[in-house]
Amino acid sequence: MNEQISQAVIRRLPRYYRYLGDLLLQGTERISSNELSAKMNSTASQIRQDLNNFGGFGQQGYGYNVKYLHDEIGKILGLNNTHNMIIIGAGNLAKAIVRYDKFERLGFPTIAMFDVNPELFGTKINDINVYSQDDLDEFVKKNRVDIAALTLPKQNAVKAAQRVVDLGIKAIWNFAHVDLEFDNKDVVVENVHLSDSLMQLSYNITRK
Amino acid sequence: MNEQISQAVIRRLPRYYRYLGDLLLQGTERISSNELSAKMNSTASQIRQDLNNFGGFGQQGYGYNVKYLHDEIGKILGLNNTHNMIIIGAGNLAKAIVRYDKFERLGFPTIAMFDVNPELFGTKINDINVYSQDDLDEFVKKNRVDIAALTLPKQNAVKAAQRVVDLGIKAIWNFAHVDLEFDNKDVVVENVHLSDSLMQLSYNITRK
Repeated sequence: MNEQISQAVIRRLPRYYRYLGDLLLQGTERISSNELSAKMNSTASQIRQDLNNFGGFGQQGYGYNVKYLHDEIGKILGLNNTHNMIIIGAGNLAKAIVRYDKFERLGFPTIAMFDVNPELFGTKINDINVYSQDDLDEFVKKNRVDIAALTLPKQNAVKAAQRVVDLGIKAIWNFAHVDLEFDNKDVVVENVHLSDSLMQLSYNITRK
Repeated sequence: MNEQISQAVIRRLPRYYRYLGDLLLQGTERISSNELSAKMNSTASQIRQDLNNFGGFGQQGYGYNVKYLHDEIGKILGLNNTHNMIIIGAGNLAKAIVRYDKFERLGFPTIAMFDVNPELFGTKINDINVYSQDDLDEFVKKNRVDIAALTLPKQNAVKAAQRVVDLGIKAIWNFAHVDLEFDNKDVVVENVHLSDSLMQLSYNITRK
């Protein structure tokens, strides 16, 4: 069933997960698609359609069980597993990531950071060690690493990306302003292109 | 003409702009849609279709003039104007933004930062002043501010967003993990939801 789900639906799942998490914190046990759509600024039919892709979760007239739906969407998103993350490039963006405790709570703990600046070797940021990039191979061999976040300049990111893929890491969270491609088609990449985002904003300002 | 262009095409424009900028740096004067598609891992017909939305820019058999196309896409994206930016929340993410000189080169200079932590008032990050949030109103009245970047926790972001909108700022670059909505429909918002991006990555890891 999951194979046929469009990327557009998948892209909306984290938002459902976020809203349902807020409802849980507020102690809401059940919610109708109408109430949920009002909160999410969406339509009830869109919500029903999206959730039907995963078998529905709701009973006509009873609404959705918030905790059950939250947990099921979490499972679909793979959040029932912990994903160990390393960050390559221990600059400000890396610091922001490692200090934002939400990522760890979602199951994405940063377990190490790597840099080329000797002044940083042996330091800690938020209790996470910064190592030399020369120690990357050994670290990856000794520890389970699921995700490599790349927060380094474009010109170094391509090489670093290929290196982590060669070490067997299968997922890359790429903040460098470059598109990454690999021969190994098992590797998944998620890009955060901040400049593209700013240009999008600028386009929308210009059109208004 | 521009009114009919789909958001999907618009979302691809920054990527064209980026690749054409790289070609310019390499000294490439002309490029065919076939050559460009090979570089961009896209199809030539997609590129021709996308660019036809804006009148084409290419001559059959001659390819595209790289500088002309780069400049025209830049104009469509509003990059021929400077957009003054302020950042609310002077934490690590703000530091990363202000130290990344690419944004200024693209025409998005940060002109001030604001925080609620008194220890930061009067300090500078990359030569940009950090002010108290109490000084926000006065600053916005005295300076042209086009974009407010929100790099502060979710619980403070909604209030800060409404405040900058009330001050007349029409564009928000939102890094807080919350969806912002305003009565004023002239306000444009671009979200960078990093947790959503990580969940997307996790989904794709899980499906592999």
